[in-house]
Amino acid sequence: MGYQFWKTETLETFCLDVFEKFGFSGEDAAFITDVLLKSDLYGIESHGVQRLYRYYKGLLSGMIRKDAVPEILFETPVSAVIDGNDAMGQLVGRLAMNKAIEKAQTSGIGIVTVRNSNHYGIAGYYAKMACEKGFIGLSCTNTNPITVPTYGRTAMLGTNPIAIAVPADPFDFYFDAGTSVVTRGKLEVYNKEGKPLHEGWALDGDGIPTVDASVVLGNIAHHGGGGIMPLGGASEETGGHKGYGYAMLCELFSSIFSLGTPSSRTGRDGRALICHGFAAIDPAIFGDAVAIREHLSDYLEDIRRSPKAAGAERIYTHGEKEYEAEKRILREGIPVNDNTMAEFKEVCDGLSLDFGRYFSGYELRDTGFGGNFY
Amino acid sequence: MGYQFWKTETLETFCLDVFEKFGFSGEDAAFITDVLLKSDLYGIESHGVQRLYRYYKGLLSGMIRKDAVPEILFETPVSAVIDGNDAMGQLVGRLAMNKAIEKAQTSGIGIVTVRNSNHYGIAGYYAKMACEKGFIGLSCTNTNPITVPTYGRTAMLGTNPIAIAVPADPFDFYFDAGTSVVTRGKLEVYNKEGKPLHEGWALDGDGIPTVDASVVLGNIAHHGGGGIMPLGGASEETGGHKGYGYAMLCELFSSIFSLGTPSSRTGRDGRALICHGFAAIDPAIFGDAVAIREHLSDYLEDIRRSPKAAGAERIYTHGEKEYEAEKRILREGIPVNDNTMAEFKEVCDGLSLDFGRYFSGYELRDTGFGGNFY
Repeated sequence: MGYQFWKTETLETFCLDVFEKFGFSGEDAAFITDVLLKSDLYGIESHGVQRLYRYYKGLLSGMIRKDAVPEILFETPVSAVIDGNDAMGQLVGRLAMNKAIEKAQTSGIGIVTVRNSNHYGIAGYYAKMACEKGFIGLSCTNTNPITVPTYGRTAMLGTNPIAIAVPADPFDFYFDAGTSVVTRGKLEVYNKEGKPLHEGWALDGDGIPTVDASVVLGNIAHHGGGGIMPLGGASEETGGHKGYGYAMLCELFSSIFSLGTPSSRTGRDGRALICHGFAAIDPAIFGDAVAIREHLSDYLEDIRRSPKAAGAERIYTHGEKEYEAEKRILREGIPVNDNTMAEFKEVCDGLSLDFGRYFSGYELRDTGFGGNFY
Repeated sequence: MGYQFWKTETLETFCLDVFEKFGFSGEDAAFITDVLLKSDLYGIESHGVQRLYRYYKGLLSGMIRKDAVPEILFETPVSAVIDGNDAMGQLVGRLAMNKAIEKAQTSGIGIVTVRNSNHYGIAGYYAKMACEKGFIGLSCTNTNPITVPTYGRTAMLGTNPIAIAVPADPFDFYFDAGTSVVTRGKLEVYNKEGKPLHEGWALDGDGIPTVDASVVLGNIAHHGGGGIMPLGGASEETGGHKGYGYAMLCELFSSIFSLGTPSSRTGRDGRALICHGFAAIDPAIFGDAVAIREHLSDYLEDIRRSPKAAGAERIYTHGEKEYEAEKRILREGIPVNDNTMAEFKEVCDGLSLDFGRYFSGYELRDTGFGGNFY
């Protein structure tokens, strides 16, 4: 499959127009667009503009209610519970993280749990919102059922990413990862390339280990049973119960404390029912925020400089790849695959937007790819 | 190696006498003993009375300062920073978790970070302290350097367990796990049994993957380089950077926010310099604590009842094994291996305690085991 590189501004203009066409305000459209583009700039193609089509479909079907306003159900000086009311996930996430930050500003810490939302993009975006104000930021979200608990054969958990961002130099500590052993996005890559999966990554619908990505993706899409294993793989011997535990940690701060819908029951009756969790912590509640920042930066530098494994050239600390990717991609452009370009064309046609105005010179190709697993 | 089963009361009396001999008050000795025995009752032999010898040695050497009093360095209504002053880890942990709980009682949440402590037993014990008061409890601790960052070959991280306990029925959600792919304790079991390790579990001192447990344990003990891989194994492809991220999460809330010593530099100059993190959260900050407890219990039951993988009979939720182990072990007795019994004898001799008074009828055996890796 081919890739076309586009300037950030090109994709930004296109996304803004798409969301404004749906009736979002300029400010809201800009926020949603920023979440999408930040993922591409971090080098995470799976959660970037590639997802635009999914949001488009969700807005058309009413799974995402474009006029919905998220509602604060309950508040204390250190917490809030929000009902997303099926609004656009990014806008729910913005409200929730801003609420957490506001509480951290007055109380030192804020935790917000959210129910009845939609897919909100990369969890790390929200963690970074807090980090950019000098706070420790955390966010997690449940998802559609994808991950199988250890010794189960039904996806009772989502990929359930947990993200944390902490101010550091020369770049923030930034960790954002699914608690499954592998992301659905990576399975899609293996599927496109026809590569067998690693052992211990997935089960088929009969609960038997499989290395066939297409089987697993098809089952996820059509609720055929099986799914992806938690980080650590298929057994307790290899630590699968630990990944399952981190997936539960995500579920607690998203669906459980909000009295929302656990991943096992999301996506029913035309509603996404996705739940998120957010926290912001002022490092000054531990004393000297500047000293903490320096202390963390020193430790991260120690790790990066420590001796390398045989055959390895470099040790990364979390956030380093995203930091470098952003600089490179801003310079080189955002890569968009042909399949996504075909989806952009469909979006333009559906919304009466002129594809050629954004992507002049691009000729649609038959990608030969049989279809995405949304 | 053989095992001898002892009544909880027998081991309790013995441990109490050991700690009182060192000059701890009855109350302090009882707390330390309870932390040790709780681990055995949960079926976690590695952190139970087997560790008594390690504490004994630490108290003798002065690494653990028995008269030290931990000090509160900084406080806000939602947080505290404590200097353990090299005191017994369990007593530092008790103070810190009680402080977190006290703040949760008044502010809804309390986070406490601790530096300059010693090994504090199972992280889960402290999470449970909060849970038993109806709160969400979290705790984590760094350790000696044992875990290698992805693509590194020097242990810059500890096994860095993270524990969380949340009230539920018929038993609490209770997750306590090291962020390394495997614990040092499990390596010791593989070593004793002469079994090869799994691929992706460990590196030797040259940064080359090894399946020889004795090499890895020897290197950990003598700072020979290499170590255990993070959960997810040796490469990013298998998710090793995720386990490395969770290990960092632990390090943040223990050594970084306390301005303490990261795992990479612990154990220097005769001091352990271990750091811990604690949090207690009142579920009522999210509204109806009773409804949350029921909601979590229902979800856990859904998971346990969901279809099983091929060949699997049962899906556990976190805390279930400990819940069942405690009932069984209280009935059957705590298993203590012959090697540990030999250490008990040495402790008795060293402290002028009568081994036969506690363990009458037990004959010391030559275990043929070449030595522990402390």
